[in-house]
Amino acid sequence: MPHFRTTRRVEFGDTDMAGIMHFSNFFKFLEVAETSFLHSIGYSVTWQADGVRYGFPRVSVKCDFFKPARFEDVLTMEVRVAKVGTKSVSYVMTFLRGDDKLAEGLVTSVLCRGTAHGMMESIEIPAEMRAILEAASVH
Amino acid sequence: MPHFRTTRRVEFGDTDMAGIMHFSNFFKFLEVAETSFLHSIGYSVTWQADGVRYGFPRVSVKCDFFKPARFEDVLTMEVRVAKVGTKSVSYVMTFLRGDDKLAEGLVTSVLCRGTAHGMMESIEIPAEMRAILEAASVH
Amino acid sequence: MPHFRTTRRVEFGDTDMAGIMHFSNFFKFLEVAETSFLHSIGYSVTWQADGVRYGFPRVSVKCDFFKPARFEDVLTMEVRVAKVGTKSVSYVMTFLRGDDKLAEGLVTSVLCRGTAHGMMESIEIPAEMRAILEAASVH
Amino acid sequence: MPHFRTTRRVEFGDTDMAGIMHFSNFFKFLEVAETSFLHSIGYSVTWQADGVRYGFPRVSVKCDFFKPARFEDVLTMEVRVAKVGTKSVSYVMTFLRGDDKLAEGLVTSVLCRGTAHGMMESIEIPAEMRAILEAASVH
Repeated sequence: MPHFRTTRRVEFGDTDMAGIMHFSNFFKFLEVAETSFLHSIGYSVTWQADGVRYGFPRVSVKCDFFKPARFEDVLTMEVRVAKVGTKSVSYVMTFLRGDDKLAEGLVTSVLCRGTAHGMMESIEIPAEMRAILEAASVH
Repeated sequence: MPHFRTTRRVEFGDTDMAGIMHFSNFFKFLEVAETSFLHSIGYSVTWQADGVRYGFPRVSVKCDFFKPARFEDVLTMEVRVAKVGTKSVSYVMTFLRGDDKLAEGLVTSVLCRGTAHGMMESIEIPAEMRAILEAASVH
Repeated sequence: MPHFRTTRRVEFGDTDMAGIMHFSNFFKFLEVAETSFLHSIGYSVTWQADGVRYGFPRVSVKCDFFKPARFEDVLTMEVRVAKVGTKSVSYVMTFLRGDDKLAEGLVTSVLCRGTAHGMMESIEIPAEMRAILEAASVH
Repeated sequence: MPHFRTTRRVEFGDTDMAGIMHFSNFFKFLEVAETSFLHSIGYSVTWQADGVRYGFPRVSVKCDFFKPARFEDVLTMEVRVAKVGTKSVSYVMTFLRGDDKLAEGLVTSVLCRGTAHGMMESIEIPAEMRAILEAASVH
């Protein structure tokens, strides 16, 4: 199965005075990719089911920057599921401009459920979701 | 009474490829000024009291830009209460670098209360809050 | 001629603790709409020609908010040229979710040219650009 | 020598619909800390000297999130120089609310110089800067 891909254009407001996309905005693009990937398998980064809120808050995020992204570049973000843990999922996100690899991110998100007190608690990834995530994994 | 003032530095990530603060970030500075002003009179842009959430969502925001703000500029934001309506407050926000007026914003926020269904409804500004806001008004 | 339209999804990071899109992010969406509109007529918010940089910095921005936008809403932004001045263009930007009008923005941008000293100076809109902008105007 | 510390308040617009600071905004705070630290030793994340632009673009950024930051929290960012390489500096950034460690970041920035063609090239950290950075290092 080919890996999930989505695209997003670098806007003027995404750049900084060095003339390139500010590094913090790669994390906004990364979230777009994570959300679109989760949509593609029937989930999201947060959703409501039977009156309970679920979500995938990130517990660790990393990005290495190889080449700058510039205004009007249309970046392709490729999402690969790197690991499905008991309660967490890790993704490798590759940022491409054509065949050029501009950056690579690593995100770990934990499945959480809202509690009665307005907090979030981590929960085990249910079997059905696990099966879908593993099917989308890197082999 | 002198008008409320607060400061904030322009960060590298606030700039764009034109080498100046991106216009959208003036609205982030404007929110900092609104929050700090509301703190100075004992309120905030959102708070909880007796288990109810209150807040001041904005219904109209405007900014005119006269001169660019640059990286490392420390901007002074002067907040003046322009009008206290039945349910709303309007502020004039002036962005200064020293004596230089870089921009001027106009914000109208409406007092709201959270409802049992997770929505917000506008409410009348209570007499005590009104008195404080009017005391801080432009004369 | 129908007005120019483009779409953009509200991301998780576009929302705030009130559960709705933070007002400052409407200005990011507004820039996306302005850039895409300018692309559609052969320009952009900044470009280089014959070694000179041109651009459309904003001198005035306003937005009125009628209804909240929420996570995963796909907003339609309709762009109408409201006025073509000697050196400036004004746009009315309507934010729609389906037929629901969520917000309306007004932007005035000034055509500028980079100078030898790294500054920007405003210039008259050339006849060809004026003709294209006027053809796209509100009638 | 105690480690460099600076503070920044979590603004309303820094939060997301989960009611906590959006993870991407930790990277904005991290840049504030890096800039303020560099100011404290006489440098910045970008500066001009003898007509040449210098800067410290980031080549790798990581953040682990332990506990959420909330609206109006005043975060303390502690900056420690973890490593001074030939051309790069790595920092450990700890985000604290009082004694509570909310997150920990790791940033690697490379010293660069603007070229005649408007690009950036990495250069060796000069002896004087190296001495200052090493004096500020973790022991």
